Amino acid sequence: MHTLFASLPRRVRVVEVGPRDGLQNEKGQVPTAQKIRFIEQLAEAGLPVVEATSFVSPRAIPQLSDASEVMSSLTRLPGTEYPVLVPNMKGMERALAAGVRSIAVFTAASESFTRHNINATIAESLANFRPVVEAAQREQIPVRGYISTVFGCPYEGEVKPEQTLEVALRLLDMGISELSLGDTIGVATPDQVVTVIDLLVTKGRIPLEKLAVHFHDTRGTALANVLTALQLGISTVDSAAGGLGGCPYAPGAAGNLATEDLLYMLHGLGIETGVNLEKVVAATRSIAPFLGHPPTSKYYQAATAL
Amino acid sequence: MHTLFASLPRRVRVVEVGPRDGLQNEKGQVPTAQKIRFIEQLAEAGLPVVEATSFVSPRAIPQLSDASEVMSSLTRLPGTEYPVLVPNMKGMERALAAGVRSIAVFTAASESFTRHNINATIAESLANFRPVVEAAQREQIPVRGYISTVFGCPYEGEVKPEQTLEVALRLLDMGISELSLGDTIGVATPDQVVTVIDLLVTKGRIPLEKLAVHFHDTRGTALANVLTALQLGISTVDSAAGGLGGCPYAPGAAGNLATEDLLYMLHGLGIETGVNLEKVVAATRSIAPFLGHPPTSKYYQAATAL
Repeated sequence: MHTLFASLPRRVRVVEVGPRDGLQNEKGQVPTAQKIRFIEQLAEAGLPVVEATSFVSPRAIPQLSDASEVMSSLTRLPGTEYPVLVPNMKGMERALAAGVRSIAVFTAASESFTRHNINATIAESLANFRPVVEAAQREQIPVRGYISTVFGCPYEGEVKPEQTLEVALRLLDMGISELSLGDTIGVATPDQVVTVIDLLVTKGRIPLEKLAVHFHDTRGTALANVLTALQLGISTVDSAAGGLGGCPYAPGAAGNLATEDLLYMLHGLGIETGVNLEKVVAATRSIAPFLGHPPTSKYYQAATAL
Repeated sequence: MHTLFASLPRRVRVVEVGPRDGLQNEKGQVPTAQKIRFIEQLAEAGLPVVEATSFVSPRAIPQLSDASEVMSSLTRLPGTEYPVLVPNMKGMERALAAGVRSIAVFTAASESFTRHNINATIAESLANFRPVVEAAQREQIPVRGYISTVFGCPYEGEVKPEQTLEVALRLLDMGISELSLGDTIGVATPDQVVTVIDLLVTKGRIPLEKLAVHFHDTRGTALANVLTALQLGISTVDSAAGGLGGCPYAPGAAGNLATEDLLYMLHGLGIETGVNLEKVVAATRSIAPFLGHPPTSKYYQAATAL
């Protein structure tokens, strides 16, 4: 065998973000019972992590205003992690009351993005969720940190890799256990993936195990970017069943990398995931009627074609 | 800079197959004048090779029954190649009469596929176009050879890489100048790309410069497969503007790798193509109304969103 893929990980941990990052950006109204069933189906498919919802202000994101009900009513599988996004202490209190045992916080590598998106500087966003992280630590709850706009920003365009490094180091200093590097608007190409990960690992001395990649497929490059990240030794990849989510900055375009497309490539590469691809297709099929448009996953489209 | 992409080619030759492989598989009726304009726009965008049509039987593929008119009426740019597909001597005579100066022939790595698709064994298909290749050589016309179903067959499933090697060597023996390795049903994953190309180059001693890759994006893996081929030193890649073509074996699914998505990744990687991406989008936009469905290119969808 050729040595090109000699250093690929043997196993990849797929972090399913469809119920949160996906549904948050879908216009269609999905009934709470259907969301719960969707999360349960994804866990039953074998996904080790299913990000279930977000305890944000219901006014800010009405699609996820049922977060407490979703988390309280969910039948959980032992061994599966069901993190939720938490923006502040109010959200944290609601999350804990609903039995949440894993959380994520969200910031960006671009100042203009945090200003537009959460009306704060990056430093303010970090200060905002510092008490959240401290509360999580008291409860021995792991915290994932999303860094968005790593590869480009809808407001300022290019984002310097050094900005990502600075935010990454601050999050790790705070005690955050995993960083997800987000291509929020789906502009990344594989060379950028090399530049950013190489900088974080060599200059930042961040262990590869603490890094995850989160690509949007808006311009079709998500899987090529994942392949590049795998070649660099990354072994945690985010994706959303069906490619749910769209792109808020290009309505009508594709959103999150589809879990089905990711699994098809990983399994072809002989990489273990523990996930049953056809069960993910079934989960997407059950939620598809509520979206108001066909899921953008190419594997899903081929699997459900005539 | 990390060494992962140290061996990428500095320049890639993009072979545009939309007017032939794309339109051949589209149900919509495109008026001849519109096809001619489409080909001209693609050439004006800087694509060095635009496969223009096919001189097959009009009964077999009515969509391309205007091949002679297209080739006779086309305004050609100096330096641009406009190959056409030629299945037999009758087609060759029509092609020569229409002023064609570059051709392609078509076979497969899978016996069941040639039997179903052209009602011949692989050996018979080679025998059929041997006189075509000889006529081309007399006219000093270059011949490209398509090997389809290299990575999987709709009838027999898995295809052994050795079958591709055998067909490849026979085509080269015949004097064919370039081989395009086709993933006809869009099932390939990057590991297969490594296996096949490594076999052709190391065991078959086929020079990399004689190989092109032709992926369909039916399951979303086309760009990851291209990236892998580039890492192996391949520098000729086929694609179709807009992702035209669909998949005859999965109606409703995606077809050819989209030229826009390919160019976006290549340019991001700093690889020269000589092609203006926005002019390709404009060409796709001009033909889109005749297709009866939105083009599947993700870049195109993002560029034309709102």
